[in-house]
Amino acid sequence: MAKVSIKPIGDRVLVQHIEEKEQVRGGIIIPDAAKEKPQEAKVIALGTGKKDENGKAAAFEVKVGDMVLLSPYGGSEVKVDGQKYKLVREDDILGVIV
Amino acid sequence: MAKVSIKPIGDRVLVQHIEEKEQVRGGIIIPDAAKEKPQEAKVIALGTGKKDENGKAAAFEVKVGDMVLLSPYGGSEVKVDGQKYKLVREDDILGVIV
Amino acid sequence: MAKVSIKPIGDRVLVQHIEEKEQVRGGIIIPDAAKEKPQEAKVIALGTGKKDENGKAAAFEVKVGDMVLLSPYGGSEVKVDGQKYKLVREDDILGVIV
Amino acid sequence: MAKVSIKPIGDRVLVQHIEEKEQVRGGIIIPDAAKEKPQEAKVIALGTGKKDENGKAAAFEVKVGDMVLLSPYGGSEVKVDGQKYKLVREDDILGVIV
Amino acid sequence: MAKVSIKPIGDRVLVQHIEEKEQVRGGIIIPDAAKEKPQEAKVIALGTGKKDENGKAAAFEVKVGDMVLLSPYGGSEVKVDGQKYKLVREDDILGVIV
Amino acid sequence: MAKVSIKPIGDRVLVQHIEEKEQVRGGIIIPDAAKEKPQEAKVIALGTGKKDENGKAAAFEVKVGDMVLLSPYGGSEVKVDGQKYKLVREDDILGVIV
Amino acid sequence: MAKVSIKPIGDRVLVQHIEEKEQVRGGIIIPDAAKEKPQEAKVIALGTGKKDENGKAAAFEVKVGDMVLLSPYGGSEVKVDGQKYKLVREDDILGVIV
Repeated sequence: MAKVSIKPIGDRVLVQHIEEKEQVRGGIIIPDAAKEKPQEAKVIALGTGKKDENGKAAAFEVKVGDMVLLSPYGGSEVKVDGQKYKLVREDDILGVIV
Repeated sequence: MAKVSIKPIGDRVLVQHIEEKEQVRGGIIIPDAAKEKPQEAKVIALGTGKKDENGKAAAFEVKVGDMVLLSPYGGSEVKVDGQKYKLVREDDILGVIV
Repeated sequence: MAKVSIKPIGDRVLVQHIEEKEQVRGGIIIPDAAKEKPQEAKVIALGTGKKDENGKAAAFEVKVGDMVLLSPYGGSEVKVDGQKYKLVREDDILGVIV
Repeated sequence: MAKVSIKPIGDRVLVQHIEEKEQVRGGIIIPDAAKEKPQEAKVIALGTGKKDENGKAAAFEVKVGDMVLLSPYGGSEVKVDGQKYKLVREDDILGVIV
Repeated sequence: MAKVSIKPIGDRVLVQHIEEKEQVRGGIIIPDAAKEKPQEAKVIALGTGKKDENGKAAAFEVKVGDMVLLSPYGGSEVKVDGQKYKLVREDDILGVIV
Repeated sequence: MAKVSIKPIGDRVLVQHIEEKEQVRGGIIIPDAAKEKPQEAKVIALGTGKKDENGKAAAFEVKVGDMVLLSPYGGSEVKVDGQKYKLVREDDILGVIV
Repeated sequence: MAKVSIKPIGDRVLVQHIEEKEQVRGGIIIPDAAKEKPQEAKVIALGTGKKDENGKAAAFEVKVGDMVLLSPYGGSEVKVDGQKYKLVREDDILGVIV
């Protein structure tokens, strides 16, 4: 995979959606029927961090390479070199698959 | 039960919904008719904690293994190794069954 | 009455709704016709307290045993050993009957 | 009038609605036609006070016995010994008739 | 004009609406057609002031006697001795006519 | 032009809408078709400033005489000596034409 | 390109939308079908900065010349010398193309 050329701003994170067929790996299957199913994705790049009132950026709870579960809401899709990515706020990350 | 492989982020908690037939145990029955009935669930994993403005994570009011009553609203369902779980914010936990 | 087995979380309070026929006691009658009538209830258990930004739990304005008037809005019903209870936030308690 | 047996919680105030026929007293008449007419009422009991972040209760701007104008919105009606009262937040008190 | 007998609470101000025919004085005419036309009014009484977190009341930007322009939204009408008044929050005052 | 007789309150600014025919000056043309087109206007008077929690008024980013672009939303129109003006919050000013 | 004559206010940024045909450059293609597709744009001018409670302006995460991805929501279009620009809040910038 080529180096991704997007640097997220603030508390945003760039993630790559894991396709349905790959979701069986690791034993985690997300029910298709569930209306509000979280999406499995990989963290590609972290943002510049949310600034507190003193201008200090907060650390992220996730790191590049983490497999995460995303809230089904929020986030914007982008396409780079034929690959789909999503820019989400960190608060839209429900959990890390460990 | 295999070790669950999800680490919740922030003030989120991973819980396992207790099936209807098991809800009689301990004498607690939640009325079926009630439109906004809380759900009985078991705490499986705690999140990384909600950060205050100094970046310190707040402690949780619940601990792994607690039987809790969940608000009927909020939370996202996930399935791991054929078991259904839910990722909820701690504020969606109404009380602990003691 | 058996010891109730629910510990409310945060600023929540467990209350027991007083049945219509018992509401005449103490001379307080709540009009049936009133669309937004407060409900009379007894405080059964206090929550763990709302945390301030330093993690210190705030004290409750009510205590176990208090007869209170509840806002008609908010709260979740639970049933324990055949008795109906309600988990409400303290802010949903309008006043104490003294 | 018997001593009223309700202690309001927090920033709430117990008031007694003054009947239409009594509203002429003091020269203050509130127009019937006005859709959002404030209601004239008497302060019967003050709440425990709104707590600041240090847990100190704020003082009330009104005192027991004050004749006040209420916002037409908000508040819950209760009936004690055949008398109608209202539990309102202090912010729903627009002004004091002096 | 008799002394007005209403003391506004908090950041509220008692104002007297200036009738259409008087609005020509001072050269200021507010268009009738304008859907959201501000209303010209005179400040009659200031409130007790908005309290900050230390309980200190903030000063008002307007003073008794000021001719002001009101936001067409918000405020409650009251009638005292046959005169119409309005209780508005200070933030509903757009400007002072100087 | 006669001296304008309105002093805005708080973070409000008095501006004078520049007529369509004058908008060609300086090379800036705002598309008519655009549904949410910003309006070009001139700053006539600054408000008393938004107060912080210590009661200190914040400085304005614009000054009297600045040509500005206004958000198409918000603001109230007033007419003084046959001229139309608008009272807007400073946050409704998108930019200064320099 | 002539020097652009707009200085954004506060946390706003002036950007120039990159036309569809130019979006292939750098390998980034944004799907047409996507309902909430971010827009590619170039940063032309930074605002005066969002003020904190002490009146200090926060630094921007982007700089003039950056190629950015914009949220499809928010922002106002303006036209200068026949060129279309957009005034957006910095929070509407999802990421920088690097």
